[in-house]
Amino acid sequence: MAVYTQVSAEAMAALLHAYGLGTLISAKGIAEGVENSNYLVEASAGRFILTLYEKRVDAGDLPFFLALLDHCADRGLPVPRALRDRDGRQVQSLCGRPACLIEFLPGVSLTTPSAGQARAAGEALGALHAALADFARERPNTLGPDGWRALAARCGAGLDAIAPGLAARVARELDFLAAHWPADLPRAVIHADLFPDNVLMLGDRVTGMIDFYFACSEIRAWDLAVTHSAWSFSGDGTDFDPAIGAALVAGYAARFGLSAAERAALPVLARGAALRFTLTRAWDWLNTPADALVTRKDPLAFLRRLDRYAAQGETLFA
Amino acid sequence: MAVYTQVSAEAMAALLHAYGLGTLISAKGIAEGVENSNYLVEASAGRFILTLYEKRVDAGDLPFFLALLDHCADRGLPVPRALRDRDGRQVQSLCGRPACLIEFLPGVSLTTPSAGQARAAGEALGALHAALADFARERPNTLGPDGWRALAARCGAGLDAIAPGLAARVARELDFLAAHWPADLPRAVIHADLFPDNVLMLGDRVTGMIDFYFACSEIRAWDLAVTHSAWSFSGDGTDFDPAIGAALVAGYAARFGLSAAERAALPVLARGAALRFTLTRAWDWLNTPADALVTRKDPLAFLRRLDRYAAQGETLFA
Repeated sequence: MAVYTQVSAEAMAALLHAYGLGTLISAKGIAEGVENSNYLVEASAGRFILTLYEKRVDAGDLPFFLALLDHCADRGLPVPRALRDRDGRQVQSLCGRPACLIEFLPGVSLTTPSAGQARAAGEALGALHAALADFARERPNTLGPDGWRALAARCGAGLDAIAPGLAARVARELDFLAAHWPADLPRAVIHADLFPDNVLMLGDRVTGMIDFYFACSEIRAWDLAVTHSAWSFSGDGTDFDPAIGAALVAGYAARFGLSAAERAALPVLARGAALRFTLTRAWDWLNTPADALVTRKDPLAFLRRLDRYAAQGETLFA
Repeated sequence: MAVYTQVSAEAMAALLHAYGLGTLISAKGIAEGVENSNYLVEASAGRFILTLYEKRVDAGDLPFFLALLDHCADRGLPVPRALRDRDGRQVQSLCGRPACLIEFLPGVSLTTPSAGQARAAGEALGALHAALADFARERPNTLGPDGWRALAARCGAGLDAIAPGLAARVARELDFLAAHWPADLPRAVIHADLFPDNVLMLGDRVTGMIDFYFACSEIRAWDLAVTHSAWSFSGDGTDFDPAIGAALVAGYAARFGLSAAERAALPVLARGAALRFTLTRAWDWLNTPADALVTRKDPLAFLRRLDRYAAQGETLFA
């Protein structure tokens, strides 16, 4: 969400030359995505995003992410492909960091999407799953169900510092999910973080899906549950908009299909999604100074979703 | 240097409509300038910078800055003018902050300018002074000589925490400058902060002068001294490049002119410039957490310049 590494205009001009993209016209550091440094670069050949991978993205995972983006772009999806330089390389070394020059996609992220826009997002997620159906690579979900208990333990007493009783609430939920987690649903590579931030739109049209750096092998319907938890509530988790939730699921089902077993599992999967973001936000909250470069996101915004899914899950997906 | 205020795409689209600039195509928060929030906004009618004024810019000063930019743009200078909405207003209220939609200028800020580029920057500063010669408004230099002693006192013992002996060094310099500060040089409105960051270039051509939020009424040649101190040294202040310094002064003198009295005063003015940035950076250093949104700039980078100007001032401007 900030520019951690300053890249000189001279270094950017040299990079553009290596890609055969002409001369440098403008470059602005942008506040976007996970903890990478990003620049919006204008060259005589067009506009591009220059990403330097900082802490959160493991360089060893880059080949997976880049292959995934190529795979989806080859199938016509609006995802930002990493360009290849004159020697065919997608990953450079810049200022000591792995770096990619990435396609620029038009569109803006919505704060208050309409039901029509939510339906388009659901359709886009369905199209993504269709494109990924024959994607052969795998990547474990490092933030998936298997890791939640350990993550809660690492947060420790900090959970109750965030909200009294949170540790016990999380422990109860972990037990519930362990007992009720669906066992036999189809698995595939998924986006795993398709928040409104990560969907670019122009009007009712999806023009980009971005920020695939949590993509992993997981229960496929979990992706729809994550998206539902992210899109259907107000940011702070207090208000649920049934029209948005229904439009997301309908768009997804129309584009990709949703089995009866997957549909039936959505309330439990959504509890898992809400717990996942409660826990990862809690961890970040406890380990990020209040005045750090990264804006801390409120873990309670997802605890509220969790409570709502736990109390009314069937209704919310009716 | 960061995005402090999040503006929704919906609010930006409404703003563009108020300016008659068509629909919103893209918007990226950018890390630029003093402590404002800035977005690079693409509309169907072109690209613009949306600035929300946060802490450092006093809203009461905005009319001065906007009039200055209009004055210079009317005279053909590459400065970013604030646009007017359909009702003729330049200043909006957005998310509770004063905000302007500003022209986008191409070009990049250089990290290691050549002598030819420094000459172009000197010429651009001369052209700015020529354009401002008949600019009638005034704004006091709140970071000028009259305020340095008080600023040093506010830093207090913190100066010695930054570097042992710094408080005494600053006190000696304040005495020296009080005794030798030029009294009768021409005064005008100046930029006062024309660091390489604030000059956009394409090749050897200046395509933009930006960030006028320190502009004020001051000894005119002080602007050249500030620019000299900013451009002629390596960032950390250890290396001086005489070719850059000479090119800046030559470009300025060729474009605007430099009297013998102004030229003779440059070494003392440059000591003042180096002290000004030593003190303001020291203040920011002492009052900014190490992990804050804003990158702290090393005060010693300008103390080194100060020492160099004090020891060799005549030579550095020979």
